[in-house]
Amino acid sequence: MELSFESLAALVGGELVSSGSEASLTGVSSLEGAGPTEVSFLGNEKYRQQFLETKAGAVIVPMQVEAAMAPKGVALVRVEQPSVAFTKVITHFAESAAEFVPGIEEGALVSPDAKVDPAMVRVAAGAVVQAGAVIGRGTEICSGAVIGRDVQIGEDCLIYPNVTIRERCELGNRVTLQPGVVIGADGFGYDLVKGRHEKTPQVGIVVLGDDVEIGANSTIDRARFGKTVIGEGTKVDNLVQIAHNVVIGKHCLIVALSGLAGSCKLGDYVTVAARAGIAGHVEVGDRVIIAGKAGVTKSISKSGAYYGYPARPMRQQLKLTASLETVPEMRKQLKQLEKRIQELEGK
Amino acid sequence: MELSFESLAALVGGELVSSGSEASLTGVSSLEGAGPTEVSFLGNEKYRQQFLETKAGAVIVPMQVEAAMAPKGVALVRVEQPSVAFTKVITHFAESAAEFVPGIEEGALVSPDAKVDPAMVRVAAGAVVQAGAVIGRGTEICSGAVIGRDVQIGEDCLIYPNVTIRERCELGNRVTLQPGVVIGADGFGYDLVKGRHEKTPQVGIVVLGDDVEIGANSTIDRARFGKTVIGEGTKVDNLVQIAHNVVIGKHCLIVALSGLAGSCKLGDYVTVAARAGIAGHVEVGDRVIIAGKAGVTKSISKSGAYYGYPARPMRQQLKLTASLETVPEMRKQLKQLEKRIQELEGK
Amino acid sequence: MELSFESLAALVGGELVSSGSEASLTGVSSLEGAGPTEVSFLGNEKYRQQFLETKAGAVIVPMQVEAAMAPKGVALVRVEQPSVAFTKVITHFAESAAEFVPGIEEGALVSPDAKVDPAMVRVAAGAVVQAGAVIGRGTEICSGAVIGRDVQIGEDCLIYPNVTIRERCELGNRVTLQPGVVIGADGFGYDLVKGRHEKTPQVGIVVLGDDVEIGANSTIDRARFGKTVIGEGTKVDNLVQIAHNVVIGKHCLIVALSGLAGSCKLGDYVTVAARAGIAGHVEVGDRVIIAGKAGVTKSISKSGAYYGYPARPMRQQLKLTASLETVPEMRKQLKQLEKRIQELEGK
Repeated sequence: MELSFESLAALVGGELVSSGSEASLTGVSSLEGAGPTEVSFLGNEKYRQQFLETKAGAVIVPMQVEAAMAPKGVALVRVEQPSVAFTKVITHFAESAAEFVPGIEEGALVSPDAKVDPAMVRVAAGAVVQAGAVIGRGTEICSGAVIGRDVQIGEDCLIYPNVTIRERCELGNRVTLQPGVVIGADGFGYDLVKGRHEKTPQVGIVVLGDDVEIGANSTIDRARFGKTVIGEGTKVDNLVQIAHNVVIGKHCLIVALSGLAGSCKLGDYVTVAARAGIAGHVEVGDRVIIAGKAGVTKSISKSGAYYGYPARPMRQQLKLTASLETVPEMRKQLKQLEKRIQELEGK
Repeated sequence: MELSFESLAALVGGELVSSGSEASLTGVSSLEGAGPTEVSFLGNEKYRQQFLETKAGAVIVPMQVEAAMAPKGVALVRVEQPSVAFTKVITHFAESAAEFVPGIEEGALVSPDAKVDPAMVRVAAGAVVQAGAVIGRGTEICSGAVIGRDVQIGEDCLIYPNVTIRERCELGNRVTLQPGVVIGADGFGYDLVKGRHEKTPQVGIVVLGDDVEIGANSTIDRARFGKTVIGEGTKVDNLVQIAHNVVIGKHCLIVALSGLAGSCKLGDYVTVAARAGIAGHVEVGDRVIIAGKAGVTKSISKSGAYYGYPARPMRQQLKLTASLETVPEMRKQLKQLEKRIQELEGK
Repeated sequence: MELSFESLAALVGGELVSSGSEASLTGVSSLEGAGPTEVSFLGNEKYRQQFLETKAGAVIVPMQVEAAMAPKGVALVRVEQPSVAFTKVITHFAESAAEFVPGIEEGALVSPDAKVDPAMVRVAAGAVVQAGAVIGRGTEICSGAVIGRDVQIGEDCLIYPNVTIRERCELGNRVTLQPGVVIGADGFGYDLVKGRHEKTPQVGIVVLGDDVEIGANSTIDRARFGKTVIGEGTKVDNLVQIAHNVVIGKHCLIVALSGLAGSCKLGDYVTVAARAGIAGHVEVGDRVIIAGKAGVTKSISKSGAYYGYPARPMRQQLKLTASLETVPEMRKQLKQLEKRIQELEGK
């Protein structure tokens, strides 16, 4: 995982022009935050002052930076495109950190009736896998995660700590669930009978497509019956609520604190920005962008950006908003006009 | 749990008029999503095309649908009211899934000082029950749930995985907590003393009445002292925040992503729609409906619907909203009037 | 932990003027909610009726209340300042409840490669501490909490049940994490490459300063690289989302359901009220107050209160809001003016 200064230069195809003070490099950081075992980069002239004061072990710099400019004890690696090179360094450390070691740790609670191959799957201490669950090879179930009865999880998934997946839900391949995610809780459905809310059984499931990622503490409810579906490649941020029977297409982005009400349907490549809401049973077409804090109350078929509550095409809403800001001025004008009318009437 | 085609017809009191391809039926789904071991229904003529293309094993249909209309390999069961019949089928599968088997599973961590009768209560692997906790008969504590010291839980409750109930909180009978719920975290209370926020001790508890249900990852804070109370039969959706000393009456509905600030008080049969907020110390009377995204800043005693921020009676707010949409038009009118006045003045 | 009636009087420096019915007192409550083993107080004349009907074991009252006024079976303790005295009682019970007993409970899953001194640290049953983690003395890790690889936790911290702290994150001293908190989940960062969202590696960490408290089920994402930072003494409420690379200063208050987008920066003593949002990369200066539901879209350097969406100085926004409420009236005036102009034109 660690890098020598020479192997850093080799990794990014750059030229090492001064040397650092430590034996090796263990991670990356910003110019401001980095210490002597960390790599940073100078991607933009406006960060020059931070470069001159950095405590980093190594900094990736553009070709025009000369060795003599290196702050004391900081190795410089010169490359054509520092930001592209830096991404390679990040990826190096990220991949080393994510080494996959199969096996069922002591303290993992795996039902004998679950299909988990200890040579292919990792289940950490304190994780629970219930009867009938099937876990694909290369998948890791972290501590405190609870995999319910008959759940199906594909290959190369990463289920972080304290995730709950309730009975019978299905995950594709390469699905990542950040800590605290809840998949398959009951949808919010009741009938008022003689003054009491009687629960409508929620017997459907949740299906997550390949390459879906769900952010920390987000919740995706099981369908009343049938399926709540998140399409392939869709990414959901933290603290998002997705209600029962919602169907989301492929490659969408749903940002933090948003809420999708029951049975709404999103096409492909839809973006829902932070804190936005979509009402129940509404349909949103491909490539629509819902701006932050917007509330979508009616179906939208035409691609483009929408904003406000109720959500309108961005341009229309911006015009309305701008016009509302002139109301105090309009009040003054109205008074002046009335005065002028009075004068005319008095003539 | 499984149903033969004949037992399906018997369950709903219907007539089996064609036969399916599989040996038995294992669940329900929508016409679109169902496979050959699943039951669906045709409740509405607008779904006829989906009916004709369904891969379901059996479909419950209205009396006028003839056997000859059955898609190949699909059993039809004719009844007077397909949707009522279908609810019976859902309930059948839901109840079979929820069989209660008492016992303390291997890997459950139950304090010897907790009152848990293994013949009456189920505690799953990886669940924790701390000293002094009392669990009523018929109650199930799922994996990863943590029941704190001296917590009291009534009968027939269902505490899903990774729920936390902190010390001394009290639950009635038939309470359901979806995964990730937190009951009894400290309220958010500090005094600024010499430039630092000093914590106000939060030593009260949370009391949940009979038949309360709380949605996934919602949080209900303990009282500063005394009790935070959720009344009998009230249902709370996912990702809802209920602050310290809030008192909620009976049979309310609180929808996802809403927040109730400290010491606010709701009557009975109150509905708080998604993403709404109630300010601290505010009182909301019986049968009030707070619309989605509304923000209640003052007490409301009169029943009816309220909307907007600050929340107003629905009609009043709709009128205001409609009027705001005319502002761009008003700006034009204002200009025209000024022109006409100028002309009059020029006479 | 329990108090006799005499020791209650001694604790608050008051005079015991009647006696209760139970042997001892075990907690505090409101006049309305208290039972015979609980202490309450009469701080304000408007609660006199509740005082007369209370079932409390003891009530702390002002000097002018006479023994004869005590409800039956209720002990009275007379003091100069009942509310100050009552805080002492709350603190007594809170501190007794929080007794710290070091040790690694049976059922705790602590890696042999973690640095945890069983004589100094408490790890509860069902908690997980992974390799390389370092836990300071006086710190308690509750059941179901998962402490990731190489995490560093300072002294006297309290990590409640079902918290997740992912690899390499760092906590100062006296940090409290309420149940369900997630520290160090991946930030929400993707690049759209050939129609698919490719994950940007998130290899930074989260750093929480001394005396930070985070509310139940809140989520704080690790930096893309470098650090997401919450400064000393800052308090965060429940269900708050703090994105990658956010930097929050000292002694801030961030209230429930708020969201801070990526790389935004807050100064010291900033208040973000409930349901507010701060856009990405925005900077908010010291002592700024962001009102509830506000959305900050541009940097704010001047201290003071800000409100609305987009957020404006409070006074300006209140004026705009008030003016918008007059629009229906303006519409009427506009019509009248037009009529008067018509008449003038007709002359």
